[in-house]
Amino acid sequence: MTNSTFSLHEQHEALKRLIEKFELEMHLVDVNPGPRQELERSLLQKQHDAELERHLQRFHSADLADLIEVLSSDHRKRVWDHIPTSRRGEVMLELADAVLESVVETMSREDIVAALSKLEPDDLTFLSDAIPDEAFHAALQTLTSEERTWVHTAATYREEEAGHLMASDMVILKPGQTMENVQAMLRTRKELPDHTDKLFVIDSRGHLIGALFLQDILLNESDTRVEKAMRERVVTFHPRDELDEVALAFERYDLVSAPVINERGKLIGRLTIDAVLDYVREESEKDALNVVGVVETEDLFARIWDSARNRWLWLGINLLTAFGISRVIGAFETTIAQLVALASLMPIIASVAGNTGNQTTALVIRSLALNQLQGSNFWHLLRKELAISLLNGIVWGALVGLFAFLFYQQLGLSIVVTVAMALSFVLAALLGVSAPVLLERVGRDPAMGSSVILTGMIDALGFFVFLLLASLFLV
Amino acid sequence: MTNSTFSLHEQHEALKRLIEKFELEMHLVDVNPGPRQELERSLLQKQHDAELERHLQRFHSADLADLIEVLSSDHRKRVWDHIPTSRRGEVMLELADAVLESVVETMSREDIVAALSKLEPDDLTFLSDAIPDEAFHAALQTLTSEERTWVHTAATYREEEAGHLMASDMVILKPGQTMENVQAMLRTRKELPDHTDKLFVIDSRGHLIGALFLQDILLNESDTRVEKAMRERVVTFHPRDELDEVALAFERYDLVSAPVINERGKLIGRLTIDAVLDYVREESEKDALNVVGVVETEDLFARIWDSARNRWLWLGINLLTAFGISRVIGAFETTIAQLVALASLMPIIASVAGNTGNQTTALVIRSLALNQLQGSNFWHLLRKELAISLLNGIVWGALVGLFAFLFYQQLGLSIVVTVAMALSFVLAALLGVSAPVLLERVGRDPAMGSSVILTGMIDALGFFVFLLLASLFLV
Repeated sequence: MTNSTFSLHEQHEALKRLIEKFELEMHLVDVNPGPRQELERSLLQKQHDAELERHLQRFHSADLADLIEVLSSDHRKRVWDHIPTSRRGEVMLELADAVLESVVETMSREDIVAALSKLEPDDLTFLSDAIPDEAFHAALQTLTSEERTWVHTAATYREEEAGHLMASDMVILKPGQTMENVQAMLRTRKELPDHTDKLFVIDSRGHLIGALFLQDILLNESDTRVEKAMRERVVTFHPRDELDEVALAFERYDLVSAPVINERGKLIGRLTIDAVLDYVREESEKDALNVVGVVETEDLFARIWDSARNRWLWLGINLLTAFGISRVIGAFETTIAQLVALASLMPIIASVAGNTGNQTTALVIRSLALNQLQGSNFWHLLRKELAISLLNGIVWGALVGLFAFLFYQQLGLSIVVTVAMALSFVLAALLGVSAPVLLERVGRDPAMGSSVILTGMIDALGFFVFLLLASLFLV
Repeated sequence: MTNSTFSLHEQHEALKRLIEKFELEMHLVDVNPGPRQELERSLLQKQHDAELERHLQRFHSADLADLIEVLSSDHRKRVWDHIPTSRRGEVMLELADAVLESVVETMSREDIVAALSKLEPDDLTFLSDAIPDEAFHAALQTLTSEERTWVHTAATYREEEAGHLMASDMVILKPGQTMENVQAMLRTRKELPDHTDKLFVIDSRGHLIGALFLQDILLNESDTRVEKAMRERVVTFHPRDELDEVALAFERYDLVSAPVINERGKLIGRLTIDAVLDYVREESEKDALNVVGVVETEDLFARIWDSARNRWLWLGINLLTAFGISRVIGAFETTIAQLVALASLMPIIASVAGNTGNQTTALVIRSLALNQLQGSNFWHLLRKELAISLLNGIVWGALVGLFAFLFYQQLGLSIVVTVAMALSFVLAALLGVSAPVLLERVGRDPAMGSSVILTGMIDALGFFVFLLLASLFLV
C-alpha cells in the first residue's frame, strides 16, 4: 500500500524523534547559559517551528488526526500548535471524540472560530457536540444565513438519526435538461462534492423524482433528456431514519450516496458512504467497549483520573451483583462448613455457565443488530438455545462430576455437581436469549454492559442451584 | 427510508403467511381425499409456485439473502427452489457463510454450476470456499481462459489479503487520449462496473501512472488530454496487503475504489468500497463473537448438534481454566474450613477484578486494531492502566472491606479483603494489557477467546491472593 499506515508509523517515529531532538537542543541551551542565551533560544525556536511545520505539511488530514491520537498530551499540544489554522478544521473532523475534546480544551475561542470557519455547514453540525457553545455560535456567524438555517435544522436531529449525518452539498437537475446542458453546467463548477456518484433530479415543487448517475451522463448521447436517462427507483432516506438502518441499507444496496427526503418527498440533503462507514466503525468500537462497560470511547492518553471515573459506573454495578452473589453463598455458609469441597467446586459451575450464557448473548446481539430476530423467530431461537445448553450442560456436567469424583470420592457430590451444571446451563441460555431481547424491547442498547449483568446473574443462580442441591441432598 | 428493512420485515411476514397458507391448503386437500385428489394437488402446486415466484421477483438480491437467513430450514429450501437460476448466484454472494453452506448442501452439482455461471470471475473467487471443489471446477469451465487465469491467481491469496477481494472489472485509459476520446469509448459500453468513481491510466508497459475521476471527464474541456486531467497521487494497494489495513485506508482517505498494483507497479485489479464495507462488518461481527469464543459466524438456524459443537472448543478451554481455579481453592480447603466467611467473599474479588481486566483488554484490542499501540506507547499505556487499577483497587477494595466488616465484624478479614482486592486489580491490569499485546506479537488474533482465558487467569490469581493472605494472617 502506498500512502499507508506503514509509512504512517514511520512518519510518527520520525516526528517523535524530531520533537525529542528539539527538546534536547533547548535543554542544552538552557544548561549552558551564555551571554546571548535569549537570542539563541529564540533562533532555535524559530528553526524548530519551521522544521516542524514543513514536516507536518506532508500529512493528509486524516493521518494528522491519527498521529495526534497516539501522541502524549504535551507532544499533542506541540504538534497542534504547528498545524496551520486553515487545516485545523479538517483535522478536527477526523479526531476521535475524546481526543477532540482534549484538543479543544487547549484552544482559545478565537482559534476555534478560525478553525471552524473553513468548514462546510454539515461538518460544523458534526462537530457541534465537542465545541463550547459560545465558540460554536461565533463560528456560525461566519456562515451565510442560508447555511445557518441548515445547521439549525440539522441540530434538531438526534446523533443516531440520518438527519444528523446528512450533507447539504449536492448537484440538482431538472428533468427537461439534456446531457449536453448538464455537462455544460458541470463544467462551470471547478469540482463536484466528494462522493458524487449521482445527481438528483427534482420537479418544480422540489420533490425528488429520480437520480442521474455520472456514468449515465457519459454513456448517453448528448441530446438525451435527463428524465429519460435518470433512474426512477432510488433508495431514499428520511431524516428521522435510524443510522443503524441506514448503514444496513448502504451495505445491502451497495450505495455510494443517497438522497434524504422529507415526509412530502422534498429533497432536503444527501448521505454519503464515507460518513456511513465512519459511523459503522465508531459504533462497532463502541459496542466492543460497551459489552464490558467502558462507557465512552476512551482516549488512550486521557488523564488517569478521567479514565478511572469512566469505568466506575459498571464496576459499581459489577460490585453490586458481586455483593448479591456473596449473600447467596453466605446463606449456605453452614452447608459449606460441613462440606468444604463445595467451596472449591462452585466456581467451576459459575464460570462455565457464565461463559455459555455470554456466547448465547453475543449471537443474539448480533442477530438483533442485523434485524434477524422478529416475532416467531424468537421462540424458535429460544427453544434451540435451550436444547443446545441442555445437551452441553449434561455433557460438560458429567465431566465435572467425574473430576469431582476423582478428587473427593463421593458419588453424591458428583451427581449434585452434574445436575447443578446442567440446570445452570439451561438457566444461562434462558437469560442469554431473553436479557438482550428484553433490553432491546424497552429501547436500551442490549450490548451495554451485558457481560457484567449477565455474568453476575448467572453466577448467582449457579451458586444458588449448586449449594441448594448440596444442602438438600448432601449434608 | 424507502425499499427499507422496515418493509423487508413486512415482506418477510407476508411471505411466511403465504407459505403457511399453501401448507394449509395442501393439508385440506390431503385430509379430504376425493376422486380427483392427484389432479387437485398438482393444480394447487402449480398455482402456489406461480404465486411464490411472483412474490419473490419483487425482492432485491440482498433482501432475498436476508430473508433466507431468517427462514427456518424447510421454508428456506422452499423459497430457494423458487428463485430463478439466473438470480441465485447474486443471492449466494450476499448470504452469510454458514447459511450459504446450508443452502449449497441442498443443491445438485448442476444447479450450483448453473447459478455460478452468471457471475463475474472475482465473485466466483469470493464464493470458492463455500462451494464443493468439483462443482467449483465445473463452473470454472464456463469462463474464458483469461477469466480462469484470473480466478486461479486470486485463489493464491489468503482470505485476509487484498488480492482475495480485488475485482477484475475496471476501465483502463492511455495518457494520450482526450476527454472526447474517453467519452466516445465509454458510450460504446452499455454500463460501467459498479462503484466506478475513477478510471485508471496506464503507460505502455501496463504500469499505473494516474487515475481519472468520472467527474473530471465531465468538468474538463473535450480536447483536454488524459495525462493533464488525471490525478497522479493515487492511493494504491498491493495484493498481499492485509485487508484490515486496506479498510483503515479506505476510511481514512474516503475512497470509493482503488487500484491494486504488483511489486513492479503494474495494474492488476481493483478494490471497491462495497467489498471493503462488507469485510469491515463481517470482521466486527466475528470479533464480537470471538471474544466469548463462538468460533464461526454461526447460522441462527443451524442444526442444534452443529451449533453445540461450534462452541465446544472454548467451553473446553473454559472448563480447564475452571478446574485450575478449583485446584487453587482446593489447596486452601483447611483455611476455608476454619473461616467459612472466606468462601462467600472470594467471588467478589474474582468477579470485579475479572471485569476490570476485561475493560482494559477491550481498550487494548481496539488500540491494536487501530494501529495506535506502537513501541514506546506500550509502556506508557501499561503504566497508566496500572495506576488506574491501583487507584480503583484501593477505592473499591475499601468498599468491599467495609461490606465484609458489616457482615462479619472482623477487622482482620476486612483488611485482608481490601489488600487482596487492590492486588487483584493490579494483576488484572497487568494481564489485561500484556495478554492481547503478546498474542498480537506472536501473530494470533487478540480478540479470540480473550474473555475466557483472561477471566480464568484473573479468577485464579484473585482467589490465590485472597486465600493466601487469609491463611497467612487470619487462621
